[in-house]
Amino acid sequence: MTALALDIGATKFAAAVVDSDYSLSGVRQVPADPADPWAACRELLRIVARDMSVTAVGIGAAGPVDGPGGVISPLNLAPWRAGFPIVEQVRSLFPDAVVRLAIDGACLVLAEHRVGGLRGVDNGLALTVSSGVGGGIVADGRVLLGRTGNAGHLGHIVVPCDDTPCACGGFGCVEAVASGMSSVRWARAQGWTGTTGVELGAAARDGDPIALAALARAGTALGQAISSAAALLDVDRVVIGGGFARSGEALWEPLRAAVARHARLAFVRELSVQLSTIGDGATLVGAGVLAVEAQAG
Amino acid sequence: MTALALDIGATKFAAAVVDSDYSLSGVRQVPADPADPWAACRELLRIVARDMSVTAVGIGAAGPVDGPGGVISPLNLAPWRAGFPIVEQVRSLFPDAVVRLAIDGACLVLAEHRVGGLRGVDNGLALTVSSGVGGGIVADGRVLLGRTGNAGHLGHIVVPCDDTPCACGGFGCVEAVASGMSSVRWARAQGWTGTTGVELGAAARDGDPIALAALARAGTALGQAISSAAALLDVDRVVIGGGFARSGEALWEPLRAAVARHARLAFVRELSVQLSTIGDGATLVGAGVLAVEAQAG
Repeated sequence: MTALALDIGATKFAAAVVDSDYSLSGVRQVPADPADPWAACRELLRIVARDMSVTAVGIGAAGPVDGPGGVISPLNLAPWRAGFPIVEQVRSLFPDAVVRLAIDGACLVLAEHRVGGLRGVDNGLALTVSSGVGGGIVADGRVLLGRTGNAGHLGHIVVPCDDTPCACGGFGCVEAVASGMSSVRWARAQGWTGTTGVELGAAARDGDPIALAALARAGTALGQAISSAAALLDVDRVVIGGGFARSGEALWEPLRAAVARHARLAFVRELSVQLSTIGDGATLVGAGVLAVEAQAG
Repeated sequence: MTALALDIGATKFAAAVVDSDYSLSGVRQVPADPADPWAACRELLRIVARDMSVTAVGIGAAGPVDGPGGVISPLNLAPWRAGFPIVEQVRSLFPDAVVRLAIDGACLVLAEHRVGGLRGVDNGLALTVSSGVGGGIVADGRVLLGRTGNAGHLGHIVVPCDDTPCACGGFGCVEAVASGMSSVRWARAQGWTGTTGVELGAAARDGDPIALAALARAGTALGQAISSAAALLDVDRVVIGGGFARSGEALWEPLRAAVARHARLAFVRELSVQLSTIGDGATLVGAGVLAVEAQAG
């Protein structure tokens, strides 16, 4: 009885063995090979599984996904963009295993709900703010999946007063305004010369006025999107992870100010927005939850 | 075995007897008496119930509600604003009845899901656009309730490029921009002289430029909020009822244009937004569903 967790990110794959308490061991990570991603993924799974008898695999994948069909279409991996039947492929690798697939945002909220900041919370949101903005929803005690397994796309809530084109083809999505990558792009257009979200956060801590403005813009947009989602879903707890979320007060102070300005209905007035304590591996942890709970029946 | 439906609106109360197929009979409506709303409501229930033995009552109420506590706090009825224990009061009137309370938006989506445009749809939204903007959500086959019974507050999604103060205390909520009352207020500020949403719709049909601009503004904001909610929840069907939603193409054309512009992720690209066929009594129908399903266990 061995359960595996697999995280299909846009730029990296990670896998681990999962224990029944959702703890991970033997975590291993490889770059997502853009030429032959399945070869890289298969090799990773074989190394992590060693000669154990695998009975369950939980997969968290960058969206969009076709949950019911077991197909993923991560935008940043060209060979898979038109759809890759990951569940079928993993099943062929481990014929005795139950295989479960969920979008990374659903894994994120599963992880927060079982072992993180949403433990004991029946209605909450988990966000990741890194190169993109994603998330997941727990509502009335269950993780929402949606029609095609894509519920939780918090990154495509349209935010006020910014009409920036988004990679999805739309305009003014919070991801197009507030992700690390979007914030870097905006800051560079104002004359800042760094290249990463981490550098931008550091520059803001050093008082760089463009970096401060970029993080204020991002934090405000995040706070607005969070307020919209909280009112819509009647939640009072939001947990945010991802590298760019750790940019410090230059991001969080305007985020909290926007929440205070917009989340005014009585049932969201006490809305708590916190930094995740799980860290970068939250999708993998959530994939592990999928595997363990599939095994439990 | 008699089931009753009760609709607690901000300006009127309605009640009816519900059959097991969710059809209503003996529908009766009274103005919400702002001096003594419970006296008006109790009298209405007694008349509708006649001498039948009432075994179930479903209540749909204007929000906010405290669902688990059975308390309503409709903003527009002063004696109840601080909270009125409607479930306890109705139970004292019909001691043998199971009594169920849900916010009007949850009743709306229940009605659409059981007998309207969301039949057979596991993931969808129902909106009402009248003096306010409200709604309800069906997700993964269930009507969402949320932490306090207030899930579905679509009216407080923050929309782009409009910072109008909202009655909730926030700014830029779609209700503050796109409801009938908000649209009338905006049109009057531009020099239009009518007073109701119905008049505004008629003026737009007659080509009045201010009325056309007011409906374009409302339709665009509704389309943006719908796009945000559809991406967040992974739904592909939206049904809109309420008097102001029947303002015709001057509202619907910009609404559809905004959806086409913003709902661009693959899983929402086929998003269908339709006018409700249930009509004004949808909350009462949904309250009837609550009663019948409570009776069925």
